[in-house]
Amino acid sequence: MKIYFAGSIRGGRQDQALYFEIIKQLEKFGTVLTEHVGNVKVVETETARKDTDIFARDVNWLTQSDAVVAEVTSPSLGVGYEIAMAESLGKKIICIFRPANDRHLSAMIAGNPRLQVSEYTDLVDLDKIFSDFFYLRNR
Amino acid sequence: MKIYFAGSIRGGRQDQALYFEIIKQLEKFGTVLTEHVGNVKVVETETARKDTDIFARDVNWLTQSDAVVAEVTSPSLGVGYEIAMAESLGKKIICIFRPANDRHLSAMIAGNPRLQVSEYTDLVDLDKIFSDFFYLRNR
Repeated sequence: MKIYFAGSIRGGRQDQALYFEIIKQLEKFGTVLTEHVGNVKVVETETARKDTDIFARDVNWLTQSDAVVAEVTSPSLGVGYEIAMAESLGKKIICIFRPANDRHLSAMIAGNPRLQVSEYTDLVDLDKIFSDFFYLRNR
Repeated sequence: MKIYFAGSIRGGRQDQALYFEIIKQLEKFGTVLTEHVGNVKVVETETARKDTDIFARDVNWLTQSDAVVAEVTSPSLGVGYEIAMAESLGKKIICIFRPANDRHLSAMIAGNPRLQVSEYTDLVDLDKIFSDFFYLRNR
C-alpha cells in the first residue's frame, strides 16, 4: 500500500510536529511516499529544489499512490490542488480535520459528496479512523 | 466571456477589499460568475447555505466558465482545489500572486508548467496582466 500524505508546507508549518506523528501512524498501513512533509526542515530543503522538480515528483507520487490522506486543518493551495488531482485520478481519499471555533473547512472539501472527511482531536482518534479507512473501506 | 474568479473565503478574508476591486476590473472583460467572493459579508452568507449546495453551485459555475482567474496570495484549500479542477476541465487559467518576503507560492502552482502565474503589486499591474490574458492569449 503506497500512501500519499498531503499537508501544508508553504501555507504554514504550525502542524509540522503533528504531521510527523501522523506519518508514523500511517507507516503501520503502508509506505508513505511523502515522508518529508513531517520533516522539521522541509521548507528549507524544498526551497533548495526547483519548483518544477517538486511539482513533477509530487504528481508522480500521487499517480503511483494507492490512497491519499490529506490533513485539511490548515488552509493550503497545494493540499487543495492535490485533493482535486487525486479525485480526477480516481484515488481513494480521506481528509482529516481538527475542528475549532475559528476554523471552517472549505465548502469545496466539506460539501464534496465524493470525499470522506473525518474529524479528529488527537492521534488516538486517528488510529481508529485510519484502521477503518485502510482495513474496512479499502479492501 | 464568463469568468470564474477564485479567492480565499474560509481560508482567510484579509484580501476581501482587494478581491472586490479585482472583480470590478474583471467585469470589463466579461461576466464574473463568482462575484460574491468580493463581498464583505460572504463568510456569513455562505455559512447560511449548505456546503453541498455551495460545492454543486461552484462546480457548475467552473464548468460553465470560459476562463478562471485565481488569486493565490492567501493559502486556501478551495482555491487550490478549483485550480486543479479547472485544469482537468481544460479551462484557460491565470494565477495572480503578490510576492512578499514571508510568502512562498505552493510548488504545485509555481512549479506547474501548465499554469500561467503573474506577479503583481497593485491594480495598475493587473490592468495590463488582464488585458494581455483576455485579449492576446485567449483569442
